[in-house]
Parts: sequence; C-alpha cells; structure tokens
Amino acid sequence: MPHINLPDLPGIRGPMAFRPETAKPLNELVDVLLRGPHSLTPGERELIATFVSAHNDCRYCQTIHGAVAAHHLGGNEDLVVQVKHDPERAAISEKLKALLVIAGKTAESGRLVTADDVERARRLGATDLEIHDTVLIAAVFCMCNRYVDGLATWAPDDPDFYRQRAALVAQNGYAASTLPPADSSR
Amino acid sequence: MPHINLPDLPGIRGPMAFRPETAKPLNELVDVLLRGPHSLTPGERELIATFVSAHNDCRYCQTIHGAVAAHHLGGNEDLVVQVKHDPERAAISEKLKALLVIAGKTAESGRLVTADDVERARRLGATDLEIHDTVLIAAVFCMCNRYVDGLATWAPDDPDFYRQRAALVAQNGYAASTLPPADSSR
Repeated sequence: MPHINLPDLPGIRGPMAFRPETAKPLNELVDVLLRGPHSLTPGERELIATFVSAHNDCRYCQTIHGAVAAHHLGGNEDLVVQVKHDPERAAISEKLKALLVIAGKTAESGRLVTADDVERARRLGATDLEIHDTVLIAAVFCMCNRYVDGLATWAPDDPDFYRQRAALVAQNGYAASTLPPADSSR
Repeated sequence: MPHINLPDLPGIRGPMAFRPETAKPLNELVDVLLRGPHSLTPGERELIATFVSAHNDCRYCQTIHGAVAAHHLGGNEDLVVQVKHDPERAAISEKLKALLVIAGKTAESGRLVTADDVERARRLGATDLEIHDTVLIAAVFCMCNRYVDGLATWAPDDPDFYRQRAALVAQNGYAASTLPPADSSR
C-alpha cells in the first residue's frame, strides 16, 4: 500500500496524478530524452533506462521501460533480459555497451565515471550529446526509481499489462499516456 | 575538466546550456518543487535539497543550495551546516527532522522508506503533499547530483560566488537564473 493517499494507478502514475504540477515537467523531460530526435534509437535509450532501473531494483520502472524497449526492438524481450543481467555479452553495439558502463557508474555515483570510461565510449563512436544524454537518462531514472519506491507505489504482476502499456507509450509518448485515462486502460 | 565539451559555466549550468531542451523541464521541475506555493517554506525545501546533496557528496549542489537555504533563513549559514551534519540536533522543527529522515532514506534507496518513517512525520504534522514533495525533492537531487558529477563539471571555490548567486536565484527563480547571462554574473 502506498505511504500516502494516492489515486489508484500503478507505479509512477499514482504520484503523477496526485501532483500534476510536477508530473508535467517530469513527463516533458522523459519525452525529450527517450523519444526526441536523436542519434541513439528509442530502443537504445529505453535500454539505458531499463538497465539503470534494474540496477536500482525498481520493479515498476525496469518492467515498463523494459517492455517499451522490447516494443521498439521488434518484441525482443530476451535482449532486454540480457542487457539487464550481462550487457557486455548482449547483442548490442560496442558503443552502447560503453554507454551502459557510464550509465551504471552514474547510477552508483556520478563521481565514479572516469575519463577512461568516456574515452572508451568516444573511441567506439559516441558523441558528446550521446554521452551527455546517457548520464542524464541514468540520473533521471535514479530519480524516477526513488520516486516510485520511496512512496511505496504498487506494480502489476501481469506481463501483458506492461506489453499493452508499452504499445500505448510507444505510440503516444509519456506525457499523453500518463494522463488519467477516460477508460480504464491503465 | 568536464568529460565533454561544455559551455564554460559552473556546476549544472554547463550541461544545461549545452542541452537547453532538457534544461527547460529540469528548471521548471525545480522551480515548482522549491519555490512554488507550499506549506513548507522555501528555506525548509532548500534544506532538504542541501541535505540530500551533502549525502551524495555533490560539492556544487550542496554549496549552491546551502547558500540559497541560508539566504531564505536570514543568512544563517551555521544552521545549514548543522542540518547537513547532524539534523536531529539542528534548530529546525521536529516535522522537518522527520522529513529529512525520509529524504535521507530516499537518497539511499526508495525501498528503505518505511511506514513507520512516514507515520512519524505524519504524527508531527506532515501532510501527504509534504511527504510526497520530500520524496520527490530527494529524488530530484539524486538526479541533479549525478548529472553534475557524472559529467565532471567544475565548482567555484569562493563562498561569495555562491552567496551572490543565491541572492539572484532567490529573487528570480532557477529557470530565469540559469539562462546564460548577458553579463558575466555567473
């Protein structure tokens, strides 16, 4: 049960409906970072979000963003599991592996990211914008994970809930999908 | 030296100038949380931000937000130092002490916040909105701290830099103060 009296919506959507003034910039931030025009695909950026959320052991965030990542990756849920557990052996680009190292260290503490980590990513083709956004995506999900779990929100068990929701988010974006629905397609 | 090529501004302002698309919602979020109409004073909310940034050992964030807190608290810099190091013995309300416990646990991991922590805060007069915003402020500064340090931004040494900047932020807000200045009052 959530620590405070929230609208009965899963994960981050309960506190977002409780406090729309903060939900608006939060959704705008996530839409720019994960869905805006970019040299990293939406699938790659969702993998970074999923990897960090798994690192922080946030069930709702790693499951919903894992589902959105899989949606963008042609339904490849096995790849998402691989990235969460052993990114260096996953079938992703060497550049993304290097970015995930930076993301993982940022999740621990920003001070752990070294010039060598950044140099490795750059040597594998990462641009300054990609490095910047990797750090910021990791930082943003350290926020979201703590927001979701610090208020003890609930998370559905049914994997189909996340798959259906992922399709909706992939189509409409986070801001549009987080508004309390007229129907109950939560 | 920052890990990527950033505009030469201290702390979070370098990456914010580098990526204005994400700076806009970030500043909007912080302005709503720390400066919007609220039953917690701006000084109390800045103390929560400072406490979490000190917990995460982020020099720029704890110093600038500590300076903004002190500005709102009539220049009481000693109180800010006390709150950072030993909040239970600081001259702040019992309610704020209980909220700082929630903030500190959120900074570690949201899953550490217990029903007892929330009940203690509520017994001391905290509302659901105050508890929500405490968790979200803590989560937001876990993001900001990682963003600032994950890119290895620089922080000025001179305490007067932070005092002057605090006065500007207290007067104009974060969004307005983070735009690259026409003069060099950074």
